[in-house]
Amino acid sequence: MSELEPVISDLRHFVAERDWSKYHDPKNLAMLLASEAGELLALFRWVSNDEADRFARDDDSRRKIAAEVGDVAISLLLFCDRVGLDLADAARAKLDVNRRNYPVEKVRGKAHRVRKE
Amino acid sequence: MSELEPVISDLRHFVAERDWSKYHDPKNLAMLLASEAGELLALFRWVSNDEADRFARDDDSRRKIAAEVGDVAISLLLFCDRVGLDLADAARAKLDVNRRNYPVEKVRGKAHRVRKE
Amino acid sequence: MSELEPVISDLRHFVAERDWSKYHDPKNLAMLLASEAGELLALFRWVSNDEADRFARDDDSRRKIAAEVGDVAISLLLFCDRVGLDLADAARAKLDVNRRNYPVEKVRGKAHRVRKE
Amino acid sequence: MSELEPVISDLRHFVAERDWSKYHDPKNLAMLLASEAGELLALFRWVSNDEADRFARDDDSRRKIAAEVGDVAISLLLFCDRVGLDLADAARAKLDVNRRNYPVEKVRGKAHRVRKE
Repeated sequence: MSELEPVISDLRHFVAERDWSKYHDPKNLAMLLASEAGELLALFRWVSNDEADRFARDDDSRRKIAAEVGDVAISLLLFCDRVGLDLADAARAKLDVNRRNYPVEKVRGKAHRVRKE
Repeated sequence: MSELEPVISDLRHFVAERDWSKYHDPKNLAMLLASEAGELLALFRWVSNDEADRFARDDDSRRKIAAEVGDVAISLLLFCDRVGLDLADAARAKLDVNRRNYPVEKVRGKAHRVRKE
Repeated sequence: MSELEPVISDLRHFVAERDWSKYHDPKNLAMLLASEAGELLALFRWVSNDEADRFARDDDSRRKIAAEVGDVAISLLLFCDRVGLDLADAARAKLDVNRRNYPVEKVRGKAHRVRKE
Repeated sequence: MSELEPVISDLRHFVAERDWSKYHDPKNLAMLLASEAGELLALFRWVSNDEADRFARDDDSRRKIAAEVGDVAISLLLFCDRVGLDLADAARAKLDVNRRNYPVEKVRGKAHRVRKE
């Protein structure tokens, strides 16, 4: 995994050059992120669970998946940068919470359930 | 920005301990990502664009935002790990495409439009 | 508001002719619905709250909005038909719940909050 | 399928009583719709395609599904009412487009592909 710092720096430059930061408030960036996640989702709509790994290895689908993952990653990095959160720190903190909420002995091998049930 | 490598390693351990990789095919992880992005989105539904930055700085909303960003980041890292993509590489490659699609002289200061129009 | 019955009947015919019901299990249709909702969302990403009503009246955006609303409506009707739910009944039942959860005297004029807080 | 007209009328009353129409511009309602679609999606994250129909018939999941469908339907009706679109008309118009885009002889029995490919 390469580092995120240079990508974030490139993103800032990309946005500044285009004078787009006025559009990039956290509300709009949350919308961007959700709509890009929807595009990644769309690729898998008609792919069954059994075929999903193979589908993701196919050259043509892989290119599309990588492009959508790129959009989602960019949106998430823009959002984090705007609100001053570190992506890795946020993931690590939430993983700590998940470790407590899903104790191994209770959930092992079982589909994890929607948290808010 | 801290590094992603150790988080990915922790995530693999978290999933392995719970025997959850059988649920984590790319289709299910794309669904996870989209539903987590929807939860981040939900926080901003009734916040106006003008208030969004202030809202994101408020202590209570910040905690909620960080938790949802953590969920989105975890989902995206799980997805990337499953299909063998590097998050930073994917973002960088897509940013190169965006530089070509949105030339500074054409889009400067204007709301960037939905790409597929 | 015209009636839904004939549209549902047309949708069944459309799906049967194409032999697509094998792809239309509730999981796939929930994905379809979420990705179509993401496309509608995408139209409003860079439109501010203040401009949103005017944007929706503009001829060109209106055509796009109507097409995305059509996709969302089709997805929702396909989902309801597959699982045997009536769209209007489901809306009515949830509105009854919302009336109890958001008593007028408590929420009048205030942004309704995320339910699960 | 019962009629939508009385539900729309009830929704208008519900919103007016709470003085919420100021929050219900089309941008915010598109966000509401996408986040509610994300909650419906969340119910199916760990359910495989093979189990999805059975899952939807189970009493407990059925209650949750009906509640989320109700939220999605309410969001879509609020959105349509705000921008002056008829849900059934929009679905019918898009179905006409889909009939042309997916001719029976070309797509019969094959997973329909993401439209924008």
